Order: sequence, then C-alpha cells, then structure tokens
Amino acid sequence: MNRMSSTIQELPVSDTSAAHAKAIELGKQVLRMTTAAGSGHPSSALALAHIITELMYRQMRYDPADPWNPAADRLVLSVGHSVPIVYAAYADLRGATGTAEKRLLLRVDDLATLRELSSVLDGHPNPAEGFPFFDAATGSLGQGLSAAAGLALAARLDGIAKRIFVILGDGESREGQVWEAFDFIIDHRLNNVCAVFSCNGQGQADKVSDQQSAERLTAKAAAFGWDVVNVDGHDPDSLSAAFARVGKSERPLAIAARTVKGWGVDSMQHENLHGKPIPASGLEKACAELDAAGRRIGAVAVEFPQPPRPPISPRRVVSSPITLPPFEEALARCGLSNALKDKKLATRVAYGAALVALGEADERIVCLDGDVSNSTYANFFARKHPNRFFECKIAEQNMITVGVGLAAAGKIPFASSFAKFIARGTDQIDMAAITRANLKLVGSHAGISLAADGPSQMSLADVAYFRSMTRADEGRGGTVCHIFHPSDAISAYRCCEWMANIDGLCYLRTHRPDAPFLYSPDERFELRGCKQLQAGSDLTLVSSGFMLHTVLTAARQLAQSGIRCNVFDAYTFPLNAEPILAAARDGKAVILTVEDNYPGGLHAEIAEAAADVGDIRVVGMTVSRIPKSAKTPPEIFSYCGVGLEHIIERATALVKQSR
Amino acid sequence: MNRMSSTIQELPVSDTSAAHAKAIELGKQVLRMTTAAGSGHPSSALALAHIITELMYRQMRYDPADPWNPAADRLVLSVGHSVPIVYAAYADLRGATGTAEKRLLLRVDDLATLRELSSVLDGHPNPAEGFPFFDAATGSLGQGLSAAAGLALAARLDGIAKRIFVILGDGESREGQVWEAFDFIIDHRLNNVCAVFSCNGQGQADKVSDQQSAERLTAKAAAFGWDVVNVDGHDPDSLSAAFARVGKSERPLAIAARTVKGWGVDSMQHENLHGKPIPASGLEKACAELDAAGRRIGAVAVEFPQPPRPPISPRRVVSSPITLPPFEEALARCGLSNALKDKKLATRVAYGAALVALGEADERIVCLDGDVSNSTYANFFARKHPNRFFECKIAEQNMITVGVGLAAAGKIPFASSFAKFIARGTDQIDMAAITRANLKLVGSHAGISLAADGPSQMSLADVAYFRSMTRADEGRGGTVCHIFHPSDAISAYRCCEWMANIDGLCYLRTHRPDAPFLYSPDERFELRGCKQLQAGSDLTLVSSGFMLHTVLTAARQLAQSGIRCNVFDAYTFPLNAEPILAAARDGKAVILTVEDNYPGGLHAEIAEAAADVGDIRVVGMTVSRIPKSAKTPPEIFSYCGVGLEHIIERATALVKQSR
Repeated sequence: MNRMSSTIQELPVSDTSAAHAKAIELGKQVLRMTTAAGSGHPSSALALAHIITELMYRQMRYDPADPWNPAADRLVLSVGHSVPIVYAAYADLRGATGTAEKRLLLRVDDLATLRELSSVLDGHPNPAEGFPFFDAATGSLGQGLSAAAGLALAARLDGIAKRIFVILGDGESREGQVWEAFDFIIDHRLNNVCAVFSCNGQGQADKVSDQQSAERLTAKAAAFGWDVVNVDGHDPDSLSAAFARVGKSERPLAIAARTVKGWGVDSMQHENLHGKPIPASGLEKACAELDAAGRRIGAVAVEFPQPPRPPISPRRVVSSPITLPPFEEALARCGLSNALKDKKLATRVAYGAALVALGEADERIVCLDGDVSNSTYANFFARKHPNRFFECKIAEQNMITVGVGLAAAGKIPFASSFAKFIARGTDQIDMAAITRANLKLVGSHAGISLAADGPSQMSLADVAYFRSMTRADEGRGGTVCHIFHPSDAISAYRCCEWMANIDGLCYLRTHRPDAPFLYSPDERFELRGCKQLQAGSDLTLVSSGFMLHTVLTAARQLAQSGIRCNVFDAYTFPLNAEPILAAARDGKAVILTVEDNYPGGLHAEIAEAAADVGDIRVVGMTVSRIPKSAKTPPEIFSYCGVGLEHIIERATALVKQSR
Repeated sequence: MNRMSSTIQELPVSDTSAAHAKAIELGKQVLRMTTAAGSGHPSSALALAHIITELMYRQMRYDPADPWNPAADRLVLSVGHSVPIVYAAYADLRGATGTAEKRLLLRVDDLATLRELSSVLDGHPNPAEGFPFFDAATGSLGQGLSAAAGLALAARLDGIAKRIFVILGDGESREGQVWEAFDFIIDHRLNNVCAVFSCNGQGQADKVSDQQSAERLTAKAAAFGWDVVNVDGHDPDSLSAAFARVGKSERPLAIAARTVKGWGVDSMQHENLHGKPIPASGLEKACAELDAAGRRIGAVAVEFPQPPRPPISPRRVVSSPITLPPFEEALARCGLSNALKDKKLATRVAYGAALVALGEADERIVCLDGDVSNSTYANFFARKHPNRFFECKIAEQNMITVGVGLAAAGKIPFASSFAKFIARGTDQIDMAAITRANLKLVGSHAGISLAADGPSQMSLADVAYFRSMTRADEGRGGTVCHIFHPSDAISAYRCCEWMANIDGLCYLRTHRPDAPFLYSPDERFELRGCKQLQAGSDLTLVSSGFMLHTVLTAARQLAQSGIRCNVFDAYTFPLNAEPILAAARDGKAVILTVEDNYPGGLHAEIAEAAADVGDIRVVGMTVSRIPKSAKTPPEIFSYCGVGLEHIIERATALVKQSR
C-alpha cells in the first residue's frame, strides 16, 4: 500500500517539516480507510492530524506494542467519531490489538477493515472489541474528560506518575458533563490531565456556536480554574510547546486548538461534510490535495522514531475473590450493633456497612458519591477509607464516567446517589456497558417508599431500564448487567459481596426506611437466585425490596382468611424463575407480583418466563400512577395502587377465580 | 395563627426595614410548616428569605390570584427543596391553587398541610398537583434554567414581554445542564431570563466546592457571556438594584447572591442541617431567634402592597384537533414525491415531512434538535418554519427541559436527536412526566439498524425505559407516556399526527434505513392499536419498526416451508394486545416477538398480557449481545441473534413443538 507519495529524505530535516509530513501521511490513510468503509468521519479526523501526530509519536510515553502497561500515558478520544486518525497512527506504529494474552500488532493494511463486523477497528473507540489503546468506549459525546479523571485518580492511588490526554470536539464541549469534569478535576487536583479542544467551528447540522469558539472555551476553562493556551492546531511547534506544559503547574492544562475540518483537502473544507467519506472516484484527487498541502507547508517525510517509552511498572495482579466478614462483625465496625438487637435496619445502611468491609477486604474497592453520602451511607466508607472516597458533588454524569475510568485502571468503583439521580447518567451507563466497565451503581431511596419528598426524588423506571440489560450477553459469558434489590439488611450485605466479585456492571437498589430482618445473618444468596419465605398452594406472591414486607403482611392476613400463599423474594435479575414457576405449578398456577416501581421489572421478568411455557397466570401490581408527597410509605403505597389493602383484594380475587 | 410577633408599624418605614420584616415573617412560616410536616428543608428555604421577598412582592409583575395570565412574570425554583419559602409568600399573598376552572386561594393556615397526601403543597415544586404558580416540577437539580429558557422562547413567539426568574442553589450549579442552559440562553438572546444563585456554601453531605463559590460562579457566568453581579443575598437594597437590571442589557443577568443557610436561626447556622426541620419542642426558640435577628437589622413590619400587576393579555385558546393533509401532499411539499414511486422511505424522513405539515396546521408546533437535524430530518421543519425551530446544539438535557418550558407556555414541542442521545436526558424526561408536560421526543437511528457507526450510537434500552411509563396513569385519565414505533413512512406520518393531538409525553422511534411502504397512504391507525398484516394459524409473529420487514421476509420464507403465520405490526405502546392474543388462540396459541432492542419492550408487553390469562406461549427474540460496527443491517441483526435465519429457525422450532 502506498503510504507516502514523497520519498524518504536522507538529510536532516526539522521536526516541524517531519510532523507535517506525518500528519499528511496519516490524513491520507484516513481518507483511504473511510472510503473503503463507505462511512466514517474523515473531515473530523483530519482536523486532528497534527494533534495526533504530536501526541502519539512525540508526547505520550508509551509502547504501542504494550498498551497494557499501567505506567503508560493514556489518550481518551472523547470526540470519538474522529477515531480513524488514531487508527492510522496506531497502525503505523504497529500498535497491539486484542488482549495481552492474545496480541496482534495492527498493520496499515488492516485499516481497510474499518467498521467491519470482524474488525477491531470499530466505528467509534471501543476497547472491548479488541482495541486496548483506549480505556473507554466513546462516541456519545462529552464523556471522555470524566473517564480521564477516573484514570488519573487511579494512577495517583497506585503511585504512578502518568499523564492523561483527552481530545474533545468544540461542538461536543456544549455537553454539560464536560464542565462537570472541569470542576471535578480541579477539586481533586488532577493536574496530570490535559484537555485538548479541537475547534474546527463546524458541527454536524450547522456551524458550532460562538459559545464554543476557541476564544470562548479559553475564557470558560480559565473561569473554571484551569491553565489555558489557545494555539494553532496545525502548527506542530505551538502544539509541542503547549504539551510541554502538562503537569508542570498546579493546575490542569486546557489547550484550545484552532483546527480545520477536512484539513488539507480543499474539497472537504468548502462545505460541511460531516460524516461523509470521499467517494472512491475522488480518493486520488483528495490524496493529491493533501500532498499539495504538504508541499505548501514544507512537509518532509522522515522515519519517525518510536514514541518515548514509559517507566517499567509492575503489572496488575488479579486478586482472589473478595470475601466479607460475618454480618454482625461488619455492623459492629460501623457502630450498628443495636440493629442486631432491634432486628431491623435500612438496606441503604447495610450497604454502607458492606462497603466499609469490602474496602478493608480489597484495596481495589473505591467509592464515589454525589453529595448525598449521608443518605446513601457511602459516608461510612468515606470515614474509614478517605483516600479511596471521591466526592463528586451534584454531578452524576461525571460521577458515573469517572467510575468507568477508575474501573479501566483496575479499581472496583461503587458509585452512589439517589436512584432517581442515577438516571441522570443513563447514556453514561450505556457507555459503561459498552466498555464492559467493572462499575457498581447504587441507587438509594428507590421506589416510592421515601414518601414525603415526592416524585422528584423517586425512581420509578430504574428497574425497567437496568433489567433491559440483564438478558444480553456482554461477550465474555456474563450478562451486561446484574440488578440487586434486597429486602433486608442481611441480603443487602450479601448482594454487595456479589457485586464486588462480578466483573461487570451491577446496580443495587436500596430503600430509605428501616426494614425488619428476614434472614439469619449467615444466610447464603445465590446469583440469579430467589428465596422462598413461605409456602402455600392457593397463590404465589413474588416481590422484592422494601415492598416485600407489605406483601408478607398481606400473606399473613390472607392466611387468616384461609388463603395460603407461597411468598418469594426475587432479590436479583437476571433471575432463574424456575423455582417460582414450579411452586406455582404445585399449587393453583397463579402468580401475583408486587413492585414499588413502574412496569418492566419483576412482572415482566416473571411473565416472560411463565409465558415461555404458557401454563401459568401471572398478574402484576406496579405503581399505577404518578406519585406525590405523602407522610408514610403505607400512605403512598395505597395512593399508587400497591397498598396492603390492594394486595389483599387482588390476591383474594385471583384465588376466587382460580377455585 | 400568629403571623408576626411584632406589631404593625403605623409610621412610614424604609423599604429595607419592611423587607427584612417580611423575610422574617416568611422564615417563621417556613419553620412552622416544616416542623408540622416533620420533613423538608427549612435551612435552604431560609437562605432565600430575602430573595423571595424581593421577587414575589416587589419585582415580579403578576397577580397571585391569577397565575394563568400568560403575560405574568414567572419564577422557576430550580433549587426545588427550598420551596417552603415560596409557599409561605404565596399563602401570605392569597395565591391561587388548583385549576383556572376550580380555583382555591391559599391561606396561611394551609401551610401546615405541607407534604400531606391531600395537599397542593408537595415536597418539591409540582404544578400538576395544584400549584399553578410553577411551570415545571423541579427538585431534581440543575433543570430550572432550561425550563425558563423554554418559557422565554414561548413568550417571544407570542409577542409577550415578560421576565423569567430562576433561583438555583450553589451546589446545584455543579450540574452540567446549568451550563448547557447558559450557552443556550446566549445563543437565543433570551435576555429576559435572570438566574439567581443562592450561594450559601453548604451542600447536603458537606460544604459546597470552591468551584461553586459566589466568586467562581461570577467568573463562570461572565465567561459564558452573561452580565453578572455578586451581591449580599440578605440585603434588600442590593437585591433590588440587581433585579432592576434584568432585561435592560442585551445580555441575560446572573446574580451570585451570597446567602446563609438557616439565615436568622442561630441554631441552624452552626452545623449543616440539610433537610432537617426543627423539632416541635425547639420551634418557639427558633422563631424567637428569627425575631431577634430582625431586631438586630432593623426589621419593621408594614402591610406590603400586592406585587405589581402584569399587562392584560389574551388567554390561550385551546385549539381544535390538528389534522394532517394527505400523505402524498406532505411528501410533495418536502420534495419527496419520488418516494411514492419507489414506495419506500425511511421513517425518520417521514417524521420530517409530518413535522412540516404539523407546523403548517398549527402554530403551537415548535421543534428542537441537537445538531443532528440533517439526520433526524428536523431540518425540513427548520427550513419551512425557521422562527419555530430552536437549535439546541449538542446538549440533550437542556433540549429536553427547554421543551418542558415551551410546553408549559402552551406550545407543542417536538425534540429530536439520535435515540441513543435522548437517553442523556432520562431524568429530565422523568421530570417532564411529573410536570405532565405536553412534550414529544423523537429518537432517530434507533435500535441496531444503523450498523456501521457501532454501539455508541445505538439505543437499546430506550423501549424498556419509555414502556415503563406507558402503563401508569398521569392523573387525567391518560397514561404517562405513549410510544410510537412505526415500521414504514405512512404509519410514521400518522403516528406523528397522534403525537400532536395527545396532551402529554410521547416518544417516537425512527430508523435510519429506507423501508418499503406497508400501508396504503390513507390507512388509519388507532391509538393502542396494532395491524394484522398477514394471517396464518401455525404461529403468530409480532414485531414493529424496521425489524418488522425482516419478520415479513421470514414469514414469506416460512410459508414456502408450509408454515403459515399471523404477522402483526405493534406500532404503539400501550398496546391493546387482545387482537394478537385472539389471533394466536385461533391458531396454535404460540406467539414469537422480534425486536431490535434489549428486553423490556414488545416481548414484555405481549408476555404480560398473555400471562394475565396464562393460556398462550410467548417467546421473545431481542438483541442478545452488545453490538458493534457492521456494514449492513442484516449483518448486525445476525450478529445480535435477531437475523432472518434466527427468526426462521426459532419459528420453525416453535411450530414443531406445538404440533
């Protein structure tokens, strides 16, 4: 393949001329690979030609053949659709793809496989498909800087001095999450993070707003407390001088780089061709335009040396399973022994106690919270392990993606907020799932049992959303997500142990009110399991979380009317529903599910399993209307159609029908 | 009830002294009502005592007894948990609650009902529960400024000169959406919006970061292009001078107000008592502390005049149903007549054509898009109705909440982006649902059929999320949300007509690829309906959207093997599944659903309905793994386990089992 149309120069040439030549060489590869793919964003990639040349060949300390070295500098391509230019450089540098165990060095010829099903060169950065140079899937914009912050926090914990470079688009910097990350990086003094804005002025549908101009971004970054330089993004010398400042000041550095979309290809610069490859018939002409641009600016091709190498760093050791101490011991350590006497505790408090114990059991456990640690009980962890607790303040999107960065660096992050506010980061969670991030999300005050604060604080669709991911394969034999929805402190404690040991996305749903213990402290809980709490052949009741206690009360009252019920605690999804279905079949083959959320959770889970055979009735009770404030959980349960009286009424009617 | 312990002064007193006295009077009501409620956030409310006094008595032009006047100035309390101070002022002013048709004037005695199930005084601002002074539910932080921007846009369209005041917390201003709104308000020159930051320095779990100090917020607001003043938030004169500037400059005004959490109550100021009412036993002492604070600063109670009244403005007229022209006519207007010949068109393009026609049919139709209008086809509308098109750039959270503001002012906003990026605003959508906002969300490039761009651009959990809201009552007889998932351009066109006519939240899911027409141009589509496309007694196939075409191909191939299938198009949720179940019962009582998304959508919908009786098998095929880039829709369908061959294989196996 024709990598460079000019010949290699023998005489000494300036770094500047050499950088221009490399930028043009990479630019031509970008044109070729996107034309071959028939899609992609060559114009956005060309805008980064010099920035990527400077970073990947001269600034970053890393070995392209060993992207797994923990000491290596990292690049987060937040403006993910520009990725072809990174692929071009990585192929030129024979970068490693695949896994550390099964490594393949990328070749320039491989670039033509861009966006193919069998290729590691996905349409946007996607480490999980075999491109370990990246730490996080990007392409949904505005998230990269948060991932970088997570990588930087992890490096500090591990005592590694490395730099994290992030490239953002100007249009992308409209996303509020970018500014959440700007704040976070200052709060945590992560001056080894460098944010580069590629300010090419062109968005997809139209021009980028003046609010995202290089000048405006410079002013904003300064107002957020960062050092800033505003440079010509196609001038290797200015870029080099700017990058030399990274990590030298107490403040992080932002670089507002003025770039040109479609740089060097005249025909791409005259109209906004976002996401449009050159047709095959125009490829030669476009490459010639790039070469001509090179001649105008004095590009001279030389053999580039490999990038500077990082220090040698010990590899991460995969630790053994994380085991929790006995429940009583964990409570005692948090001053909660009274709960053992009272035999009741809120699941959110149990989470706090479990987290402290997990933190003692394994150094990889870290914790993030969004200014509600005294509600989620993450504050227990903050007190015991302050160096591994990261206060994210009220900025949940950033919190979740910081977690992705921490996970990429081998940590096991637990990130908590009210369940309602975890929904702030839904797209960030989607990206965490694509990354296969080992991230644990904890939503407290879930459902409607918090009552008084009203619907703005109540999570109702969270179960449907997270359950959606529990039946899909993440590519390594597991499911994309596990949900845990414990009903008492003991099961909550053990669910946390599962979460720490699963390598992947988990969601824990905790509740505000105290709840009586349902299990003995040494009870074991299985993944995909459920627990039968009571047996009876008239009806099978299934619930989870705080709502289960109302269902148990209903079952007791039904028993007084001579109606005997199975009662199951479905504390996790995905759920093996077979024991529930079998118990129902042993009786009258009628199941009633009860939830404190909108549909798409437990009812769907059981109905789907039952309908697979089609021999069991499954009736679901879910929150039937938009809630409001109320004084107590029973009051709001009744208002929303899932009160004790509704359960008894529905159960009684079902039993009558099935007699 | 003792409203003010000092006597009313007869002599002329200064505005300053009077404002202090009013602030203290309101502060005492805050203490009383939160103590009575046993929950709430008195300390945050007290921080606003002077700001609310200034705004609600002196600055805002409005009639408290008529909050429905379109010309009235508006207040958006973004820092929703501070709401008791607004309730106190509103009761003092005898503000109207309920609806315009059934109005009740709030009394001071009503304040004791705070947070009760039967009260209009919800825990956080909640207009739908009978508090029309507010336009949007708030309490999930960082959203109010976007709602205000929507109100301001609507006022401009309606030719009304009014001001929109927004109060934000300092901790809250960490949310990135706040800065998205800052950009948007500059882009759209909405200088009648005023943002007031209450900088009390105390968050929930800890102090507010220095990144959100009054000084830092001042610098940030200036860098975003706003006018800014930094004032003492408990000095009536400074506040008055600051508010006098609103709307006088070409730029919007931000006020960084230095406030004190728990202002005037010594015992509340010495520790961070976020969200903690005074116990009943301490109420008298706390009120006495407030009175003492009043004496120190020269508070003198006087009868306050009513706030200045707004100009008289015509009320909104509820328009008649919105009717679309014939499909062919709408296509012709957008230069799409060729599609009639080819008999194929992408559903996203049909959306564009429908939107243009809707805009012509009704002035209330407005459109928002996030820099992808050339992908969503909102650009058709932008060209035909430029004054009603609002480019939001890459900031979906802001876009969605701007839509809530527009809807509150009587507009019918359609807001579009890639379906994947609509997920950026999940919590904003939750708040729109609580507001009962008449908001239409449009997610293009849904599912996996976009193929090449890969998973960062693919929405997979969107159906589960939105379906979660389709079975709950929004309190006026409708459901919280309707989903439309059309399979061809004709049904897409008619779904848009439904969306415009439903008063509430709707979600339209469109796809990237062209799809052949399945219906005649004059076909009618029912709400909650489905369409039977083919009849056959061996198996009932159900699908929707682009995937339906693969299912139809499968059905044709199955017919060649002698397997005759019902095929249903389930184009909307909530769905009346009875026709599908009846057709299945007429045959072998086996249903196979096929979707291009993760579970929680069509399979759950049909399985739940079927399991309610328990006599039909329902088997579901959904996206079975995390996708990646691929060249074509069939390729990625196969990769994800929903390829043509998988459908045929599963269908054949099911039919064999049921023979």
